[in-house]
Order: sequence, then structure tokens, then C-alpha cells
Amino acid sequence: MIKINENYLNLKENYLFAETAGRINAFQKANPDKKVIKMGIGDVTLPLCKAVTDAMTEAVAEMSEKESFRGYGPEQGYEFLQSAIADYYAGFGVKLENNEIFVSDGAKSDLGNILDILSKDNKVLIPDPVYPVYVDTNIMDGREIIFADANEENCFLPMPDYDKDADIIYLCSPNNPTGAAYSRDQLAEWVKYAKAKNAVILFDSAYECFIVDDNLPRSIFTVPGAKECAIEFCSLSKTAGFTGTRCGYTVVPQELEVSGVKLNKLWLRRQTTKFNGVSYIVQRGAQAVFSEEGQKQIKENIGYYRKNAEIITTALDELGIFYTGGKNSPYIWLKCPDGADSWDFFDFLLKEANVAGTPGAGFGENGKNYFRLTAFSTHENTAEAMERLKAALKK
Amino acid sequence: MIKINENYLNLKENYLFAETAGRINAFQKANPDKKVIKMGIGDVTLPLCKAVTDAMTEAVAEMSEKESFRGYGPEQGYEFLQSAIADYYAGFGVKLENNEIFVSDGAKSDLGNILDILSKDNKVLIPDPVYPVYVDTNIMDGREIIFADANEENCFLPMPDYDKDADIIYLCSPNNPTGAAYSRDQLAEWVKYAKAKNAVILFDSAYECFIVDDNLPRSIFTVPGAKECAIEFCSLSKTAGFTGTRCGYTVVPQELEVSGVKLNKLWLRRQTTKFNGVSYIVQRGAQAVFSEEGQKQIKENIGYYRKNAEIITTALDELGIFYTGGKNSPYIWLKCPDGADSWDFFDFLLKEANVAGTPGAGFGENGKNYFRLTAFSTHENTAEAMERLKAALKK
Repeated sequence: MIKINENYLNLKENYLFAETAGRINAFQKANPDKKVIKMGIGDVTLPLCKAVTDAMTEAVAEMSEKESFRGYGPEQGYEFLQSAIADYYAGFGVKLENNEIFVSDGAKSDLGNILDILSKDNKVLIPDPVYPVYVDTNIMDGREIIFADANEENCFLPMPDYDKDADIIYLCSPNNPTGAAYSRDQLAEWVKYAKAKNAVILFDSAYECFIVDDNLPRSIFTVPGAKECAIEFCSLSKTAGFTGTRCGYTVVPQELEVSGVKLNKLWLRRQTTKFNGVSYIVQRGAQAVFSEEGQKQIKENIGYYRKNAEIITTALDELGIFYTGGKNSPYIWLKCPDGADSWDFFDFLLKEANVAGTPGAGFGENGKNYFRLTAFSTHENTAEAMERLKAALKK
Repeated sequence: MIKINENYLNLKENYLFAETAGRINAFQKANPDKKVIKMGIGDVTLPLCKAVTDAMTEAVAEMSEKESFRGYGPEQGYEFLQSAIADYYAGFGVKLENNEIFVSDGAKSDLGNILDILSKDNKVLIPDPVYPVYVDTNIMDGREIIFADANEENCFLPMPDYDKDADIIYLCSPNNPTGAAYSRDQLAEWVKYAKAKNAVILFDSAYECFIVDDNLPRSIFTVPGAKECAIEFCSLSKTAGFTGTRCGYTVVPQELEVSGVKLNKLWLRRQTTKFNGVSYIVQRGAQAVFSEEGQKQIKENIGYYRKNAEIITTALDELGIFYTGGKNSPYIWLKCPDGADSWDFFDFLLKEANVAGTPGAGFGENGKNYFRLTAFSTHENTAEAMERLKAALKK
């Protein structure tokens, strides 16, 4: 008789965005005259840049002719894209071989799938609050999970605790949801800890493009020794507005060995067996992101979002509200005024300012008095939302 | 200390296509004047049809404008594509709800990933010979595997053996590599067996578009009761030349329950946690496959490949060689003349006829005296390859 993977029964219902959407809709229905500004959205809003759409239009045309048609591509991605990504990394001083770069349909897929090559027996260390996928994918496999507390005291950047053992360590910097970003020295501490524990760091750099501070690392591989203990996951979702176009990449260094087995070789085997590569058309679009023209164009979009983040942080500074993020991240993580519960603050903000954000409780225990705002709206709406927030708090 | 998934160490090196390519290259180098015709390729060669490329060009244009830009889509696919697939199934008498259809980046991904929701404790029944992915993905999880022998006696269509217990059953019809296709009555026998054993059938219908015989089922769900015991995986790779464009779909019926848990719900949770949907652009292309114009155009391409298959089967009939497939499949699985070993026949054919195919041994123990030819070449090359085959065998 067939048996299901019973670990799935241990998953909590993921109701965060369903619940916020439900409350927003109910409010809007009861107050049809109010214009709710949505600052909770974690999705980009600006269109793909011209370099990307031009490249994809051309690729579609190639696919329509027998001579230039492409069938199965390499599961790990075309060399033209691997080389473009390698050049991008070279730009911040990280040397990668093409065979260390695996093109994927997004960081979310690879962050989940990477666990295939790791034993269920490993103990997992995950920061709290955090992107819920890290926790859920490990519950699905039945791994033991421990948490690293992120809080006001450590500016939401928890550091290693040598009294706690861990085999798999998740880090996300700049962080979702807190927007906090580790310095190179802090990451070096994590690398040291991982080596001491013979652990592997799964480093999610999906928001690296928002980093403006030159002292903050865009890749964990800028830390000496990281190639021996880390895998990095990145995505074009936020970098180039690929949330609906789907392309990311995962770097598994050749130096990374566990008991004499290269994880690169295991991951290659996983991907060649359970994946058939990213659409050729999408890979051509992704390649264009890394072209000179593409980089110029995506930086305009990122600059637009960054300006929104600045509008938000300026308002919070004026109000004297503690927050992390915003400077090197599209996320702003603020402390709910007067120690409010994050769901209560959600309701307050919706009712009093007609502004919707995301309650921190949705990202973990340590988020229960925090709140996430995002920089993906328009300048006008962001500015108006902040005026309304100020007015509501002054009441 | 981190531990790898040690099951990976039990995988055999997958050297089939590397080995055939190596032998072909070596021969070509030694005989630069000979023109080798490649009949081993399992990839399509005709370009995407106009309906598809027009739809994708339009979708790229949509993505370039703020008003029509699309960010994150539903992980399980856009309704417009689910509805198009549901209509397609309705065309052969299968009624599906949209929420039973999961759009994916290809059958290979889903065939591997579906195992996430099933316990490692299940016993797996796999036909031999077979598409190697079924075996490898289960070795990766450490499941016990037993085989159903496909051979000349059963025309490479093994039937259930009630003395053997199984929890997960793989069926592929029309089959890769044998091209053999089950009748509806035969599939009904499998459904009966699966119900008797409380097992689930993973049905790979990736080649259904090649079926011309009206008595052969295009979906296992044309068999009464199959919705209670089967999941179906299909792909546009061969149907519409999507091998490099990447789109498929998986049907998990609402009726399919294991110990009171709907597998549909588990799979939805798996996909929403570890997948972010298929590129919007590709989904628009896939939708166009199911349009009236698209269906007309892809049928021309399939007809072209079918003609190649006919050229091959006509030659084999003349030669009196036993084979399966070719009629309702792009694959022709032939018995090596004089009981030859499949690798010896590969070398013979390459040397004497300058034709390259695929040795059956690469697909399992029962393939060791068989050989796979495919219908994805041109008419001219296919006809010439058959003339050369005849001449070589007459020597």
C-alpha cells in the first residue's frame, strides 16, 4: 500500500498572504471610497528592460526557423549565460568556472531542490525571522531545525553561537524580510563557524543588486575560504524584474567537498536527472541582463525602487521608529510603535492610513512586533503612504 | 558535520549518450569522407510553429510595458493555460477541473519531483527497458525497485503480476524507448491491479500526440476508475517541439487519496513551496499550441515525423526484422539481427552503414539485444539510412 511522505502533515498552513489579502478586501468592500495603498507586495512592478525584451524577441524568432531552432539545451544552462554570470561575479572580485554555475528557473526552486543531495539526518540552522521556504522545505524532509534569533539587539543580523551545532546553515543577505545585510567581516565569522562545525552555508543572495554600500559583500564568495563551505543562490527576479519570466542561478564551487564527494558533482547529477534546463528564450533574456546596455537599464529600475525605500526610511527617521533595511534592500522592517502586535498594527495601518503592509509574525516568532514595507510601489504612492502613516501615528 | 544523501553514491554513471557520441566522433575522425546519419537523437528538429512564436512574441511585448507587465504568476500555472489543457482533454473524453492541472517546465522535472510527496518506504515497479529517469530518481531516494519485464513475448507491453506487490507503478505509453503503446483494456488491467494493491500509477503520456490508432488511449484517465489511482505527466516537448522552450503539465485528480489525504493538496503544497511557475511568455506559447491554428500547425510537424517512422517500419518489414513502435510513436525498437548484442550492432551499423542509433542496453537489461531508431531526422536522411541498413544486412 502506497504511503505518503508524512512530514508534509507537519507543515503549517501558509496563510500569511491569503490572510492579509482577505483583510484588505474586507476593508475595501466596507470602505469603497478609500484608496488602499499596498506596501506589502514582494513583487516587482516595473516592466522588463528593453535589452532583455529585444533579446527574447530575437530568440523567439530563432526558434521559428529550422536553421536556428534549439531543442534540448544543457540542463545546467547555456555557456553563453554561464559566461555572462561569471563575468558579473568577476566584477566584484569572485572568480568562477562556468561549471560552477547552474542556471535555474529561480532561486526558490534551487533552494528547495538542493536538499535532495543532503541527508535527512542533518541539523539545520535558520535565522528567525526568515523567508518561510527555508523552514517548510526542511519540514518536508523531516530535518531537525534550530533557529538563530534575529532581533533589535543584533540589528537583525544574528551571529554564530558555537554552543549550537548545525550542519546546514541558511543565510540571506540582504535579508528577506528584514532588509538587514551582513558586512564582509560578519560573513567571515559565519564561514569560520561553518568550517569549525563542518557545516555548509546555503547563502541566498537574491537581493544583492540592491547593495550600494561598497563595504557590503554581494556574494559570500568574496570571503576567503567560503568556496569550501558555501553554496550561493541568486535570482534575476528582483535584479531585473524576472519574477514572471523565471531565471536564477546557483553557484556550487568545485572546492566544496563533503567526505571526499564534490557537491558540485551531486548537484549536476540531480539537475541532469530531475531538470531539463531553462527555456532558451529566457536564457537569452537573462544574458542581456548582464550586457552593458542591460546593466544600465536594470540599474535605472533598481534606482527607482531605491528611491521609494529612501522615501520610507526618511519618514521612519522623522518618526524615530527603529527599522532595518531600506538602504541596501527593497525591504524595510520596522518596529511596531508602542510595542504593538504586528497583526494589530496591520489592522491599525489599514484602517487609519489605508496602507497595507505585511505583519512580521508571518516570518517567524521574532517578527511578532515588526512590520515589513516594500519599495516596489510608485514614488507617488510611497510618498502618500508615508504621509498617511505620519498622520495616523500623530493622532 | 554535514552528511550527503548517500543514495546518490548508488547511482550508476549515466554514460549511454556520452558513449555513443564518443564512438560516433571517433569513427567520423577516422573516416572524414563518410557522412554519418544520426538516427539516435531523441530530440525534435522542426522549429516551433507560427501560432506559438506569434503568441510568445506578443507576450514578450506585454512584458515590456508597465501596464501589461506580469510578475509572479500562480505556481500551478495560469488559468488560461489550465483551461486550454482541460479543453484538450475534453476532446478525448476526459473531464478535468483546472485545479487538477499543474503546469510545469517539463515532464522530467515533475516525474522526479513528484517523489517528494511519497514516502521512501514505498516499493516501486518499473518496466524494463525504460526511460532511465524513473530508476535514477528512485535510487536517489533509496526506494526498493522491482522490474516488470518487457520482451518480445509480451510485445514489450508487460502486464500486472499479482504475485508481485508494488506501491508505485511507472507506466509510459507510448513507451520510450520501445514505442509500444497499451490498449485501453490493457491499461484497465493495470488500474485494476493498482487498486488491488492500493498503489498509485505514475503515467507518462509524453508521446500521446503520436497516437493515430483510435483504440489506443491518449490518457490513462480514459480508463474508468483511473482518477482514483493515477497521476499523469505530459509534455509539449514532442507534441509541439518544446524541448528547448520547456513546458509540460501534470494531472493530479481530486479523487486520488491516500489514507484520507488528497495527493492533489500535497502536490500543490510541494509546488507552491519549491517552484515559482513557468515563464509567462512560455505559458502563452503553450496556450497557442492548443488553439485551432496551433493544433493544425503542430499536426503538420508530427505528420512529418510520422512519415519518417513509416519509412523505417517499411524497411524493417521488408527485412523481416521484429520491432515495436513506429506506428503510434516516434521510436522504433528493433531486434538486433542474428541475436547480436546491442553495442555490437551499434558498431556494425556505424561502420557498415554509417548510421548511428541507440543500443537498447542503455535502457535496461531487457534491451541488450535491441536497438532504438528515432523518427526525428529528415525524410531524405531517414530514407537513405534505411537503404544503407538494407545493403549492410545483405552483405
